[in-house]
Amino acid sequence: MTWIYVLDLLGTLVFAISGVLTTIDKKFDLVGSIIIGMVTAIGGGTLRDIMIGETPVGWMEDLNYLYAIIFAVFLSYIFKSSISKLRRGMFLFDTLGIGLFTILGLEKTLSIGLTIPIAILMGIVSAVFGGVIRDVLTNEVPLIFRKEIYATACLIGALIYVVLQQFSGSLNLNLIMSILVVMGIRYVSVKRGWSLHL
Amino acid sequence: MTWIYVLDLLGTLVFAISGVLTTIDKKFDLVGSIIIGMVTAIGGGTLRDIMIGETPVGWMEDLNYLYAIIFAVFLSYIFKSSISKLRRGMFLFDTLGIGLFTILGLEKTLSIGLTIPIAILMGIVSAVFGGVIRDVLTNEVPLIFRKEIYATACLIGALIYVVLQQFSGSLNLNLIMSILVVMGIRYVSVKRGWSLHL
Amino acid sequence: MTWIYVLDLLGTLVFAISGVLTTIDKKFDLVGSIIIGMVTAIGGGTLRDIMIGETPVGWMEDLNYLYAIIFAVFLSYIFKSSISKLRRGMFLFDTLGIGLFTILGLEKTLSIGLTIPIAILMGIVSAVFGGVIRDVLTNEVPLIFRKEIYATACLIGALIYVVLQQFSGSLNLNLIMSILVVMGIRYVSVKRGWSLHL
Repeated sequence: MTWIYVLDLLGTLVFAISGVLTTIDKKFDLVGSIIIGMVTAIGGGTLRDIMIGETPVGWMEDLNYLYAIIFAVFLSYIFKSSISKLRRGMFLFDTLGIGLFTILGLEKTLSIGLTIPIAILMGIVSAVFGGVIRDVLTNEVPLIFRKEIYATACLIGALIYVVLQQFSGSLNLNLIMSILVVMGIRYVSVKRGWSLHL
Repeated sequence: MTWIYVLDLLGTLVFAISGVLTTIDKKFDLVGSIIIGMVTAIGGGTLRDIMIGETPVGWMEDLNYLYAIIFAVFLSYIFKSSISKLRRGMFLFDTLGIGLFTILGLEKTLSIGLTIPIAILMGIVSAVFGGVIRDVLTNEVPLIFRKEIYATACLIGALIYVVLQQFSGSLNLNLIMSILVVMGIRYVSVKRGWSLHL
Repeated sequence: MTWIYVLDLLGTLVFAISGVLTTIDKKFDLVGSIIIGMVTAIGGGTLRDIMIGETPVGWMEDLNYLYAIIFAVFLSYIFKSSISKLRRGMFLFDTLGIGLFTILGLEKTLSIGLTIPIAILMGIVSAVFGGVIRDVLTNEVPLIFRKEIYATACLIGALIYVVLQQFSGSLNLNLIMSILVVMGIRYVSVKRGWSLHL
């Protein structure tokens, strides 16, 4: 599972960078930026672990997640003026992170014996609640409540993963397919400004 | 305890509807509305379970709560224009839900061996923190901090329940009496615009 | 450890008073003030305990913390006009509380077998997140993200404590030294209006 682990750390790093970047216009001090970076990167997984009772929460038992976040803060401050040029690369890893966090969260929830509907919900929580907590802490109405297909992309990815698992035992292939679906939906919805108002 | 279970689900449904309705003026998208509905309905019990260490949290082990919420979202969207006419019926089940959630939260806390003062506090948390988290997520100052006798009604209901339990073993009767007290206080305080400023 | 226990309760009391005082300008009702007082005083420790899996959270098993908070609410309302004259004394116990909460949080985290970096982080969370949750609930951008050296003081105090522990087994002395460092940094940074913008 090494490549999953590497992607997981990369997703954490990119989520943290995107968190730190939102603080730069807001005159936060260094510690504030770090906290927002951390919360964005690991808030969703933390909330999931707390709710399903998997404590101490995951990132406490593998310091690489903490180091990825600290590294992200450094990168953000050093390249703060040029990082916006990397927006396209960031978007790639951000959507990849969303897809991956959804499926890993879903799998973790299943692994402790909870049902599929709860696992799908916890997958979505893992992927989107870091951003929700970030927005709450910076006193914004959470973005995902208003813009684009975001949580919905996670939901569809999770459903597809669950269906694929019924037919094929190849975890890796199912994971890749589901992540690609999440990425595809995110890409198209951002391109076209889709959102789901009723 | 079947009638308690039915009322618990009904309370969950009404809390979820009231959550979804607050999002309709705010141009939230569908997923945002669902999340706010869920948080309103099960946020208080989730926070209680997390703090007392009863994880996975209660609603994860009985999918009917999740289904009640999903059903509530459907109802809210379908009857969105006419639901305001049902305000009186909603208020009835909302106050009933507050009373019931308080006592059920209190009992759950006692059942794991914590003391009565902590159980009373956790009863109040169960009943009011769903609304608090909803208000935080929609970027409002939580209503209960400013308006009407709300948490205070829960406190009084919880105290009466604890006293009744000393004198009578009839859980059902004590539960009904306490809920009626909460409903009565809520009704009168809303009618008269009471609040507790000092 | 009796003197540590007394200081811990005193810190809790002062944190609660400072929480209640922030609600007085905001027309909160009594229950709102109590909740904000509680959250300010025990929110950080609660979040730490939930994340490291030490539930039921600490203050549920020793009612003195709850009583200290209730006492603080009374004090705040009775002396509300004159309490601002005590600001200097309050600042003393507030910084003392920050230092103490940092080290106690760090020690609790180490005691369940987590690593030093995580323990330092949880020490900071214990000391500052009560204030963060207070600010979120009152719809403000958390103060510590914008003003003065606050979390940074906790970080430095925690680092010094960890280093001292390598060289000397005298827990009490190391605790006192670390707390004095936190208090000193806080004092100087407030005096000079320091902050860490980059």
